[in-house]
Formats: sequence, C-alpha cells, structure tokens
Amino acid sequence: MSKTEDNGDVLRPVVWVGDLDGYVDLIDQTKLPGTLERIACHDVETIRDAICRLAVRGAPAIGIAAAMGVVLGVRSCTATDRSEFLGVVDVVCADLASTRPTAKNLFGALDRMTACANAPHADVDATKHALLAEAVAIRDEDAAMCRAIGEAGQSLIREGGSVLTHCNAGALATAEYGTALAVMYAAHARGRKFTVYAGETRPLLQGSRLTAWELRRANIDVTVICDNMAAHVMKLGLVDLVITGADRIAANGDAANKVGTYGLAVLAKAHNIPFYVAAPSTTFDLSIEHGDEIPIEERASEEISDGFGVPTAPEGVGFFCPAFDVTPAELIRGLITERGIIDPADCGLIAEALS
Amino acid sequence: MSKTEDNGDVLRPVVWVGDLDGYVDLIDQTKLPGTLERIACHDVETIRDAICRLAVRGAPAIGIAAAMGVVLGVRSCTATDRSEFLGVVDVVCADLASTRPTAKNLFGALDRMTACANAPHADVDATKHALLAEAVAIRDEDAAMCRAIGEAGQSLIREGGSVLTHCNAGALATAEYGTALAVMYAAHARGRKFTVYAGETRPLLQGSRLTAWELRRANIDVTVICDNMAAHVMKLGLVDLVITGADRIAANGDAANKVGTYGLAVLAKAHNIPFYVAAPSTTFDLSIEHGDEIPIEERASEEISDGFGVPTAPEGVGFFCPAFDVTPAELIRGLITERGIIDPADCGLIAEALS
Repeated sequence: MSKTEDNGDVLRPVVWVGDLDGYVDLIDQTKLPGTLERIACHDVETIRDAICRLAVRGAPAIGIAAAMGVVLGVRSCTATDRSEFLGVVDVVCADLASTRPTAKNLFGALDRMTACANAPHADVDATKHALLAEAVAIRDEDAAMCRAIGEAGQSLIREGGSVLTHCNAGALATAEYGTALAVMYAAHARGRKFTVYAGETRPLLQGSRLTAWELRRANIDVTVICDNMAAHVMKLGLVDLVITGADRIAANGDAANKVGTYGLAVLAKAHNIPFYVAAPSTTFDLSIEHGDEIPIEERASEEISDGFGVPTAPEGVGFFCPAFDVTPAELIRGLITERGIIDPADCGLIAEALS
Repeated sequence: MSKTEDNGDVLRPVVWVGDLDGYVDLIDQTKLPGTLERIACHDVETIRDAICRLAVRGAPAIGIAAAMGVVLGVRSCTATDRSEFLGVVDVVCADLASTRPTAKNLFGALDRMTACANAPHADVDATKHALLAEAVAIRDEDAAMCRAIGEAGQSLIREGGSVLTHCNAGALATAEYGTALAVMYAAHARGRKFTVYAGETRPLLQGSRLTAWELRRANIDVTVICDNMAAHVMKLGLVDLVITGADRIAANGDAANKVGTYGLAVLAKAHNIPFYVAAPSTTFDLSIEHGDEIPIEERASEEISDGFGVPTAPEGVGFFCPAFDVTPAELIRGLITERGIIDPADCGLIAEALS
C-alpha cells in the first residue's frame, strides 16, 4: 500500500505492472477523496478482497480486476497437465465470480479468461502468458471503448449546459476515462463549458467522493447535491441532461445501475429531461430478456447505519440496502455505447454487432 | 445540559418549566439517536441558537420554541412603560423571526405573541404573564391538533400495510405526537400492524436519527432506507402510502417540506401510490398564493461535505444545499389536518375555518 502524489496523469485504477511475475496495481477507492493510495496485489486473495470491499468498483473496472486476478490465481500453479491446470482456472474463476452478482462485466471478463485458457496453447506456461495477455487486452479494449463512448456522446452536452450524474461512472469505474464521465471529458476536451451536478450517492458516496474528485481534477465545474435534491434541482431548471453508467443491460434495454438511478429516470421524465445511459457493449447481457431478471446485490446494513464510522441510526430498527436498481428501457432516451448512441428498443443491433 | 434515561413517557421536545421565572426545557435533537439529552434554556439566545443549529426543529416545534423564547427575551425587561415594552417585544420577535425562513409556524407563533403583547393588560408585568400563558397555549393547542391529525388520518393505514415517510414529522417536530407520525401512532394505538419505511433524509438524517428512533421506541416496525432507494422500494410494491409533514402550505395547496419530499411525490404518482401531507392549520399560509413564493432556506455546504464528522467530498467543488422543496398540490392526494382530510384544491375551506 502506498500513498501517491497526484501527478495529474491519466487515471488508471487497475493496471498490470511487469511480466507474468508482476502484480496488479489498484487505486484504493475507499480512501478517496482524502488520499490517492495504490495497492500492489500479488495474489488473487488481495484482488478478491479489493472487489468485495469496493476498493475497486464500477462494472468495467471490476471485470478488469477479476481478469487480472485470474492470472494471479493461476500463475503459481505447478500443474503441467493441461486438464489439471484448466481445473485450477475454473476454481479461481468461480471464486472471483462469487464476489459480486450484478455487474455483467465481471462474468464477461471471466468467460473470456476461461475461453482463453481453453484455447490451444503449446503448454501450461504458454497458457499463463496468454491469460496475462488476455487480461491486459480486456483492460486496453475497455480504455478504447471508453474513449469511443466519449466521442459518441459528447455532442449531447451543449455549451453552457448542465448534466446530472449519479454514482461514479468515471475513469475510476473503468480502465480509464469512464463511461458517463467520458462523455463529459470529451465535451470538455472540445473546450465546451458546462456544469455537472453530482448526486452524492448514498450510502457509500461514490458521487461526492469519486465523481466530484475526478471532475475537479479535470477542471470541470461540479456541484455536489444530496440524492434527494435532484427533483428540486430539476424543477428549478438547472439540469438539461442526465447521464449515468450501467452495471448490466438486458436484451430489452432495461439497465441496472447504482440504486437511485431508476428514481432519477422517473424524475427526468416528469421534467422532460432526456435520460441517457453510457456503457460499453461488455455491459450488455443479451442472455437476459428483461431487467427484472438481473440479480440485485444487497449490501450490509452497516453501509447505511454506520457508513462513516459514526452510528446514524438507532439500534433495533430494520434496514434495506439494495446496491442497484433497474431503469426500464422506456425511460432511457439512448444508450451511449462505443458503437454510437442507440435506442434501447434497438438492443438487437448490439446483439448483431456482438455476434 | 443533562442526559436523561428514556422513561418511555410521552415525548415533549419543548416545554416550559415553572412560572415566569422558569425556563424552556428542550430535547437536543442533534444528540439523537445516541443520547436523550435536554437543554435548560434560561435566555432567548440559547433558544435562538437551538433553533439555528436544529437542536429543536420541525415547523410546529420551532413555533413553540420561538414563542417561549419571546417570554425569555422580555421577562427581564425593566420597562414599565407599555410602548417601551412593546418595542422590546418587537425586537425580540424580529430577531427570532430571522432564524429560519421556511416554516410558517415560526411566523404564526411570533404574530400571536405580538398580538398578545398588544392586547389590553393591566400593566407590563401582567403582559409578561399573558405572554407566558400564550406560549404555553401555543404548545398545548399544537398537542391537541396533533392528536386530532392522528385521528383524522389513521384509517388510511391498513392492517398489514406499509407507509413511507421522509424526514421527521413526529413528536420531536411538534408539541408531542407529531403530524405524519401521529397518523401512524393512532393506527398503532388501534392495534393495527404495519411497516414504516423511513427515508434517512440526507444531509442531517432526521429520518434515520429521529423518525426511526421514535417509531422503534413506540414499537412500530421501521425499516431505514437511503433516500435514493425509495423508487426501487416503490417499484417492488413495498409501499402503499406516503405520508410526510409540511413546513408551509400555500393557499393553492402547494406544500413546502424537507428537501426530497417533492421527488417522493413524483415517484409516488408514477407508481400510483397515494401521497398525503399531514399538518396542522398553523402550517397553512393563506397569504401566499403559490408554493413558488415560499422562501426556501439554503443551509451551509458543510452539512453535505462534512455531515458525518469526516470530509466526504473533495475540496474545491461546489455544493447546493436547499433544506426544503415544494410539492405541487396536484401531487397531493389529501392534506391531513386537525379538521379532517381535505383535498388540496379545497384549501379555501381552511381559509374559511380560520377566518
């Protein structure tokens, strides 16, 4: 674990350092905005722990971390027998798959790693090197998709306009650059001036801790509000666009994202404000027909009752702590993907493109 | 300041103790749910400070505290000349009126105290005693109105049903018993079983700190959620009724209440869930035609950025911290008052009754 001066470089929350003997270098997002601290993960347990306690979070970033975690988990395997090695890969992948249930990217990345391991390679050692290359490719491809998402969506943000976002769908949630925030970065890179309203995103405050930090770092004007202020802000006419990320998008265009997103979509509709979801194709789960089938993670009640080390609720009461909700396709004006902005009703196009 | 064991008595957050030489005894609501601590206020400055820092909050309770604050502020006045004394009353009232801008009850209570001072009395000393009697009457009348609100609304809560509420419109916000929570207490007193979802109410968490504490104390089943989870909870079909309090209701039925209320009303409509506002007639401001004219208090940004005693947002970003929002009458199914449930379109009835 090491504290780092922020040198203003491109934010890359999950990178592999070195060759097969190397390690995964993660930004510990639980320490932001106070400290930019990186964790060197030399074993899969550390990655697993980082995913579970949200030191790394955001659907694409979780996928990347898990893929690199597979490499850490199998590289010391002494098996020389192919099927024995593949058994180890399966065990490591199954374990990583059990960390969090909602984000599609986690399962997609692990599927790719499994397929890579099962592809023909000279021997186990070559397979290990191929797995590392695959994990790095997953990261690099995500970085490229995020840039393309930014380009696809940037024209939605007008000069002098304002965008509301929720949670963190920024560089920290991806390989780099982000999804919802990529759109803002791309508009900013064109010299456009606009304001971002960042909902703080209870219980873990990814909006105020991470999104506000990222945008401030990029010199984009950002105003933090409590989540329950969004309706008032919309009524005052302060928002002309809502863009969020997604953790999983069903075949019908329904999108799961951080809890609170669905409510924002309903409010946006009531105020005639267009609501967009930005996500790479790796977040689409075409095996799931409707959003209702997306598993919604429930987190520990302490995230509500003791989120910041101070008890804020009495003992003996109940808590309900869903981490995500599902926004129906009909509330989504467009899905901003690396292939352009698509109507959620046209998710089939993604299906075609992916097939 | 004294810590008190909770003996389960009726919660009375603001009471006058003793005669004209007595004091105001306040529950310091900033200490809940951790500690039930009372403050003995012997001067108006302590009351003023308690109102400003929300040690006493909730529209009716603020009105009561301010009325009693007037007594504290004028009782030591040595003037024997009536007009000199009335000048002091005006100064004290004006100062208390400047503490918070939104709740109607504050201004209504101060108007009553001014009118009382200006009524014919034998001498200044008699006027002081009349002011104390008036302040105590404001408290006692509020207690009676809260009981009547409970009776008027209780049948809305069905056996096995569930209610969502926001902020704290309970005993702590009033003389005793509450407004929105009065409805729940009255249903509970009839032996009805139901669940309450309490939105935690960022930034100051009156929902989790106060409402959950009150309801738990009364053995009413309560589940705390983050404010941004309300839409998901509604979509899951877990809520059949929303009841909130109000800080000021305009002549057209628009109601100002804790920020987040308006969003809940929009969400309730989208889910076909009836939305009610419970408030005594002292919260109606018939001098204001539309909700848009209600002054909305903005609080210090630290309530968002440092609400838990730890900085939760980076430096250098903006904040917007409105304490209230306005729910338009058309989203309100009914106003639960001490005179029964009225359609917001019929606010004129209240006007008639008050005239």
